[in-house]
Amino acid sequence: MKKYKDTSLSAQERAEALVAEMTIEEKASQLNYKAAAIERLGIPAYNWWNEGLHGLARAGTATMFPQAIALAATFDEKTMFEVAEIISIETRAKYNMYSAQGDRDIYKGLTLWSPNINIFRDPRWGRGHETYGEDTFLTGRLGVAFVKGIQGEGKVMRAAACAKHYAVHSGPEGLRHHFDAKADAKNLEETHLPHFEMLVKAGVEGVMGAYNRVNGEGACASDFLMGKLKEWGFDGYFVSDYKALEDFHLHHGLTKTVEESAALALKKGCHVCAGYVYEHLMTAYEKGMVTEEEITRAAVAAMRTRVRLGLFDDETEFDNIPFSVISCEEHNQKSLEVAKKSMVLLKNNGILPLAKGKYKTIGVIGPNADSRDALIGNYFGTADRYITFLDGLTAKFDGRVYYSLGSHLFKQGYSGLAMPGDRYSEAVATAEQSDLVVLCVGLDAMLEGEEGDAGNEFDSGDKYDLRLPESQRILVEKVLAVGKPTVVVIASGSSLNTYSDKADAIIQAWYPGSMGGAALADIMFGESPSGKLPLTFYKEIEGFPSFEDYSMAGKTYRFLENSDNVLYPFGFGLTYSKVECTAVEYADGVAKVAVANVGKVDTEEVVQLYIKDNKSKHAAKNHKLCGFQRISIKAGEKLTVEIALDGSAFDVVDDSGKRFVDSDSFTLFAGVSQPDELSEKLSGAKCVKVDITK
Amino acid sequence: MKKYKDTSLSAQERAEALVAEMTIEEKASQLNYKAAAIERLGIPAYNWWNEGLHGLARAGTATMFPQAIALAATFDEKTMFEVAEIISIETRAKYNMYSAQGDRDIYKGLTLWSPNINIFRDPRWGRGHETYGEDTFLTGRLGVAFVKGIQGEGKVMRAAACAKHYAVHSGPEGLRHHFDAKADAKNLEETHLPHFEMLVKAGVEGVMGAYNRVNGEGACASDFLMGKLKEWGFDGYFVSDYKALEDFHLHHGLTKTVEESAALALKKGCHVCAGYVYEHLMTAYEKGMVTEEEITRAAVAAMRTRVRLGLFDDETEFDNIPFSVISCEEHNQKSLEVAKKSMVLLKNNGILPLAKGKYKTIGVIGPNADSRDALIGNYFGTADRYITFLDGLTAKFDGRVYYSLGSHLFKQGYSGLAMPGDRYSEAVATAEQSDLVVLCVGLDAMLEGEEGDAGNEFDSGDKYDLRLPESQRILVEKVLAVGKPTVVVIASGSSLNTYSDKADAIIQAWYPGSMGGAALADIMFGESPSGKLPLTFYKEIEGFPSFEDYSMAGKTYRFLENSDNVLYPFGFGLTYSKVECTAVEYADGVAKVAVANVGKVDTEEVVQLYIKDNKSKHAAKNHKLCGFQRISIKAGEKLTVEIALDGSAFDVVDDSGKRFVDSDSFTLFAGVSQPDELSEKLSGAKCVKVDITK
Repeated sequence: MKKYKDTSLSAQERAEALVAEMTIEEKASQLNYKAAAIERLGIPAYNWWNEGLHGLARAGTATMFPQAIALAATFDEKTMFEVAEIISIETRAKYNMYSAQGDRDIYKGLTLWSPNINIFRDPRWGRGHETYGEDTFLTGRLGVAFVKGIQGEGKVMRAAACAKHYAVHSGPEGLRHHFDAKADAKNLEETHLPHFEMLVKAGVEGVMGAYNRVNGEGACASDFLMGKLKEWGFDGYFVSDYKALEDFHLHHGLTKTVEESAALALKKGCHVCAGYVYEHLMTAYEKGMVTEEEITRAAVAAMRTRVRLGLFDDETEFDNIPFSVISCEEHNQKSLEVAKKSMVLLKNNGILPLAKGKYKTIGVIGPNADSRDALIGNYFGTADRYITFLDGLTAKFDGRVYYSLGSHLFKQGYSGLAMPGDRYSEAVATAEQSDLVVLCVGLDAMLEGEEGDAGNEFDSGDKYDLRLPESQRILVEKVLAVGKPTVVVIASGSSLNTYSDKADAIIQAWYPGSMGGAALADIMFGESPSGKLPLTFYKEIEGFPSFEDYSMAGKTYRFLENSDNVLYPFGFGLTYSKVECTAVEYADGVAKVAVANVGKVDTEEVVQLYIKDNKSKHAAKNHKLCGFQRISIKAGEKLTVEIALDGSAFDVVDDSGKRFVDSDSFTLFAGVSQPDELSEKLSGAKCVKVDITK
Repeated sequence: MKKYKDTSLSAQERAEALVAEMTIEEKASQLNYKAAAIERLGIPAYNWWNEGLHGLARAGTATMFPQAIALAATFDEKTMFEVAEIISIETRAKYNMYSAQGDRDIYKGLTLWSPNINIFRDPRWGRGHETYGEDTFLTGRLGVAFVKGIQGEGKVMRAAACAKHYAVHSGPEGLRHHFDAKADAKNLEETHLPHFEMLVKAGVEGVMGAYNRVNGEGACASDFLMGKLKEWGFDGYFVSDYKALEDFHLHHGLTKTVEESAALALKKGCHVCAGYVYEHLMTAYEKGMVTEEEITRAAVAAMRTRVRLGLFDDETEFDNIPFSVISCEEHNQKSLEVAKKSMVLLKNNGILPLAKGKYKTIGVIGPNADSRDALIGNYFGTADRYITFLDGLTAKFDGRVYYSLGSHLFKQGYSGLAMPGDRYSEAVATAEQSDLVVLCVGLDAMLEGEEGDAGNEFDSGDKYDLRLPESQRILVEKVLAVGKPTVVVIASGSSLNTYSDKADAIIQAWYPGSMGGAALADIMFGESPSGKLPLTFYKEIEGFPSFEDYSMAGKTYRFLENSDNVLYPFGFGLTYSKVECTAVEYADGVAKVAVANVGKVDTEEVVQLYIKDNKSKHAAKNHKLCGFQRISIKAGEKLTVEIALDGSAFDVVDDSGKRFVDSDSFTLFAGVSQPDELSEKLSGAKCVKVDITK
């Protein structure tokens, strides 16, 4: 038996043995994302690039879960784990199917370039909906759960997750190929790095370097960032973002030639190149710019991941995952369930859930009402069912449903040659004819997305401001002016102000996945919503710090200075019941929270813990999330919820970037929202607190 | 009371009275398709342009019926009438709603620019799916039924239909603005004009002039064509196609200036200008190029139509058609019913209808399987439900449905960066996993459509040839090679050869409207199909006459010379039963056909009459359709069907264009197909015949 096939050896040993059989050209060939076959060694081609952000993406039919930002809104590690586990199982099933046919194309391998754990620090960022929101702790916890679900606990990894984009990467999209993101030591350690540390320490197999520079260094070739990975004990593979190494010589001015870019990245520790720069590695080698040892080291890292995935084993425990699991009923039911956990009820004057028999006609209005795109987000697979909001409401309601598109998503006129706003009069008439209006507005990935994505009408995928496009602003105004009972449903992946104060209820539906319309209908007709905002919703962008400024001052709930600009706070979300935290205790690293459902409806809720350092001069301006637990609680029920705190809960970061406990006085808050005036007012429940002396 | 409001007067008198109150500027202003308001006379603005080809189009929610070519495939005047009646009712309901809000925009009036009755003489024509196929008689009969359904028989017209595009207009799309369609007198009278005559004589309110020239004259300003209208007694309004008058000076070289174009069209009898040329009428008048009398005459014609629509009556019988009729359940059920009557079963080795319980898994594969665009065609409204083929089959089948997109509609690779054909291996695996494959291929309006339509990747909307795009040709080959029981479903509006000989069954589904997937499922699981091809399906385009040649020689079943190139004949379509015509008699203008359902299934069928002149040297090469009747016939049932023949059945046309009876010997054929070898072989039923001596 070849040594590299000996499963009693470590992955490192097997990878070393395998690489030892390769010529230098063969080693170099394994470092391109399209790794070549080495037929004489029986190694098939392998394309490193696959995606699984909220369902296996881009290579055919798969279960489509709600977009990442919606997954985060569940505030639920268990859900995140289960979703990732399904993605991983479908990834294996597809891999088994594709590889049986010798199809080794892109999006067909086992190395998923998910999750995207960048911090959604600025509400304009077009890719924010790919993330878990604005909080480092929440992002880290949910990211770890996702990674564990993807990778599994088998003898081999079921699939490999990848933490991206490392690091300090969150727009502007239009600048990403030449931008130098500047963040001081305090901001780095407080916000931009801790969740990467959490994922690495939890064993994430891959880390992807970002496009931008970080404090002058290319993110894919940074002594600082690579040093951190080493410090955290990273032993997976490091891959560049697609064509990020090309940016070194084309845009960043870090190098002059493609060979220099290859050499720089390889030397600093980038193992796999997504792009075409490492196709020049052998030239760089021949010119003496890299050593064989450096190539070998990267090849061992790359093959180590493939060993861990069982790609050189004669059989694995996952070989029999059948085709039939892909988008099976059970998986789609999970997608529906998660969509329901993710939707955030922002306002409700009591109209929801809809009283049975009260409404004979519903008018479903708006450009996102019957839009499949509004379900999808980006980085998506092909679902085998799409239940739009209109579909879902029509199926669930037994009266007459009227539908009006109302307006284009962002263009002024809908039909060619028509006057601007040609669908408004139908929308108004529809509202007039209806006992209840469901107004479905928002965005889709055409309006918030990634630089270079097709079809993006706006600037590089970022938003200009936090308002709906004008076509929809007018629609909202006109429909609300009709004065019918109205529920506004927002499909977006980011903070939007729809100026719907007059609406009776507002639901933030995100991009809820292929079952989204069924989820909305289940909620509107009775099931209590329980999603929480994983990011602050602001009133307006005016006065917000510069998009290019990576200091966190004035951004996100932790560092916010102008609370007047908060429309809905981080952590906020209503249910149909009233759940209160009535007491909190703390001992030995564990908080015990007494929780009571004093309302009339069974519901899920999210118990949230926030901590405030009362003394340290290094403490952030506001409290920070340090624990959360989704619970299911019946009407009238009382529970005690135990939540363990990370040691890091008590840390502060000084200006040198040192994390440490600097205080003996803390206040721990427990509630179903943040412990601030607006949150408590909106959620209708006070937080409780306990002082902790260390 | 103003005289023009006196309903005891004729429309002509009222229009004259109304126009008599106008200044010349006001008269001229009424001849633009965007007719201005005349506030001092209390006349609101009116936009002449609306569309209702297969459902009210382009101005919001409406019931979406199968595309026109599919309506034709029903071979059923009753269906055509009922569909048009619903379109008309919804048009009025929308008009009532829009006008109550003062919304007088395009697509919101009562003058529908439908039907499109051009002859689909060349299978490449991109707009062929807007028509009723290749046969003049069938087109005329169905067109008349459509017009009657639109216009109604009320005191005022419910809506106005418009016969377009007059005349000799059927591609190439890329040439339409400067092309001179040449047709000799015999071809004109035999093929290009008789159905326009039928519609005019049936009272169609509008006629639209085509873009092209006809034998040198602009179609919108042709002595010959206008003379024919007069001869037929046309007293409605004549409108130019959009910007067709602009073509006079810009492309046709008929005039030198826009004023000359205005003058030419007005003098020849074009009343309303769709476009902007008549905005220059007053300049032409001031220059002495037109007279006030000519302007007055056109204004009277235009206002006469508006009078007939009741637009100057204080109230009409249609004012209370409510908003709630729009896309109501009854209308959508009609759409479903019509879709089922329209689908054509081209091949069936007995696999259909699917045996109950035999199949545990179905693999639904192909780019049109879950495509809404494949339901729609062009000139469409917004449906409030879309049941794709996948949706319909999933809802109806109680086993597991697998779905694979299979390929892009026409691009080689589906996902960015992927290799060409990146979805084929999934399609193959899906077929392998399935007990039965439903392969949904074809086109959509992006691939066959109108010149200038957005998104058209091919040449101006026309097809290059009669094959599927290469991406789908490969898909068909790969999926059929798996060898599973396979039903091929074709969504297209024209003759396509999918090279699916190996398939067990083939269904031509057309663009079946928003309920199309439910119709397909109903058929596949039991209801007998009964649609018939309203056009010849050819094997290949090679050897076909030039697209630019408007002589009918060698084209369509009547004039076909090379029957070897016929894939499926005009009039052909299978049912699940076996219906035979067993005898035919003829007396006093009426054919009596004895029909028997000798099969085991209740079904609808279309009894078809064809006539052949046995003597005249002017007779067309082949027999011609001269009667048809859709019937419902139970298994084992025998019926006698009476079909009256038009006098024109016996006509021939000589080279001078004279239509007359030139023979005393005819053979009348009756069957469920054409009386030719291939048709009888494919349909499995012989035609019967009777000789007629005049």
